Amino acid sequence: MRVADLVLPVRVYLEDTDAQGVVYNASYFRFMERARTEWLRAQGVDHDELLQKYGVLLVLSRVEARFQAPSRLSDVLHVGARVSEARGARVVFLHDIFVHAVEDQLVCRGTAEVACMDARLGKPRRIPATLLSEWNK
Amino acid sequence: MRVADLVLPVRVYLEDTDAQGVVYNASYFRFMERARTEWLRAQGVDHDELLQKYGVLLVLSRVEARFQAPSRLSDVLHVGARVSEARGARVVFLHDIFVHAVEDQLVCRGTAEVACMDARLGKPRRIPATLLSEWNK
Amino acid sequence: MRVADLVLPVRVYLEDTDAQGVVYNASYFRFMERARTEWLRAQGVDHDELLQKYGVLLVLSRVEARFQAPSRLSDVLHVGARVSEARGARVVFLHDIFVHAVEDQLVCRGTAEVACMDARLGKPRRIPATLLSEWNK
Amino acid sequence: MRVADLVLPVRVYLEDTDAQGVVYNASYFRFMERARTEWLRAQGVDHDELLQKYGVLLVLSRVEARFQAPSRLSDVLHVGARVSEARGARVVFLHDIFVHAVEDQLVCRGTAEVACMDARLGKPRRIPATLLSEWNK
Repeated sequence: MRVADLVLPVRVYLEDTDAQGVVYNASYFRFMERARTEWLRAQGVDHDELLQKYGVLLVLSRVEARFQAPSRLSDVLHVGARVSEARGARVVFLHDIFVHAVEDQLVCRGTAEVACMDARLGKPRRIPATLLSEWNK
Repeated sequence: MRVADLVLPVRVYLEDTDAQGVVYNASYFRFMERARTEWLRAQGVDHDELLQKYGVLLVLSRVEARFQAPSRLSDVLHVGARVSEARGARVVFLHDIFVHAVEDQLVCRGTAEVACMDARLGKPRRIPATLLSEWNK
Repeated sequence: MRVADLVLPVRVYLEDTDAQGVVYNASYFRFMERARTEWLRAQGVDHDELLQKYGVLLVLSRVEARFQAPSRLSDVLHVGARVSEARGARVVFLHDIFVHAVEDQLVCRGTAEVACMDARLGKPRRIPATLLSEWNK
Repeated sequence: MRVADLVLPVRVYLEDTDAQGVVYNASYFRFMERARTEWLRAQGVDHDELLQKYGVLLVLSRVEARFQAPSRLSDVLHVGARVSEARGARVVFLHDIFVHAVEDQLVCRGTAEVACMDARLGKPRRIPATLLSEWNK
């Protein structure tokens, strides 16, 4: 069984594929970003509110994807998002992406390291305490 | 009230926006294509089945978008797809895109003209009768 | 012979194609926007300078593409940009896209109607006279 | 001085940016793929020829990007591609991406691990010897 705080179903459309007949590599990073955004929304915040209420931006410092199997047009992918680490100014998201068929098959394992930045100063800043306690639940 | 055979809700993510702070023009064509694909699926066919069962491809011959108002990050768009004409080898889709807020606001009106092509001969071919009667209901 | 103020060569990469083996429809709108941007640059302005120096934004009000022939991975496209009309607050760009092979073949004819907007007021504004005389040469 | 077998200049267009005003994370993976493709072309092969002549596909098994600084609309990026390892069925590409301004600034360091696959069997296969000796020069 997979453990993930949020699982976003993503249908594969023509836009996501390439002439080799499979999902194009950069598309997976779009899917992961969608899932991170929905994860945030599920915690009750979005990019706008982070900026308006807390004065912070979440900025990617590193992303990675390990491709295990191809996925194809019309597939429904289940894109996971969960936080494996959140402290100081740093949050690490893990994104397991499964293709949902007879049985789930792992397509891609992604990692995204995010820095919490002070929007005004443009410098890393500790994640606001109220968010941090929420995110570490 | 708007009339549309299918309405696909589409959340606007960072990938869809540009540095002018709004949804990038080409993104609307991706949204319309998603809606056409779901419209087909709602009729019981997908690209693969059209090819395998009927030997046809649907190929775009003309697309157009008239932009009425901008849409932005985190908006939920309602992307319509309905057929305004289907005869011979030609299908015309109309795509009204609304932003779903307090009241619906029209963001974009799209048109897509599609040609039914014989996949083997690469030439236009009459839409198979069983599909046509379905699509003109 | 084709007449165009600017012709931008664009190589087709995997990102531009889809699982049907051809360039995806929305990619052509990205190519046209690149060509319009380079056309502007060739006139000595870019988006930033339009905003900083003239206080205006160019906003798309309508785009259209008529597809004549497919293009494929590794093709070199020649994406034209020329102004067919510029008056009041309105500019119309024509974009002929050719695939550059033994002889040029027309792949797509695009049109883009652009409104000059006052960036502060968010309303249409006459194209600044110095730009207009430049653009109508 | 930076060492790279190939450096592809890439102009940043609206399509590459997002509503946070910077280049969107997945765009860097599109840029890297363009540079790998041009690197291959500089060695005298492209995707088609690899398939036709050698019966192999190059398939991504892992990609990573470490973001050092943002890049923005209108920037010219210099996207490097060089092979750091090529043996067996495995090739590793390093992609340093610089923004070309008064002095070069590192924007992103990318890594792409590629598996050489037998197109017919769908299994890893040793890189053909003539390619390998070329790539290790």
